[in-house]
Amino acid sequence: MKVIVEVMPKDGILDPQGKAVQQALHQLGYGEVRNVRVGKRIVLNVEGSDKTIALKRAEEMADTLLANENVEGFKVHLAGGKA
Amino acid sequence: MKVIVEVMPKDGILDPQGKAVQQALHQLGYGEVRNVRVGKRIVLNVEGSDKTIALKRAEEMADTLLANENVEGFKVHLAGGKA
Repeated sequence: MKVIVEVMPKDGILDPQGKAVQQALHQLGYGEVRNVRVGKRIVLNVEGSDKTIALKRAEEMADTLLANENVEGFKVHLAGGKA
Repeated sequence: MKVIVEVMPKDGILDPQGKAVQQALHQLGYGEVRNVRVGKRIVLNVEGSDKTIALKRAEEMADTLLANENVEGFKVHLAGGKA
């Protein structure tokens, strides 16, 4: 089973990487880009068939290791499920 | 309008960051994790109301700047749309 963990910088937290990407896009002629945020997309391939348990465990993993709760938020969902 | 670009290492390409995360998860007791891939989730906030154009331009941006086509694949979709 594949579980997706999406980790993004929280609103209000400076995102220097996103700013750099935005500036590069402007220089390439994509002036319509008003803001860019860069986060992580982590695909966990896990054993087991219980979706509820897999999601609960993935939430724990995100809390413990994958996201830094001071500056990042995260969402967990099954691959193929809603974004 | 928000456009999401998901950039992931291609299948068969070594992902040292994913491997490191997997090992850390095992040490934390999450032995059910068989494989981990770590990619980027880039949220572009763009001006304009034409979704088709926004997606086409975001594909170009991913091709040109956001993804390294040698080792990464990408998907582009509107926020709130399908994952």
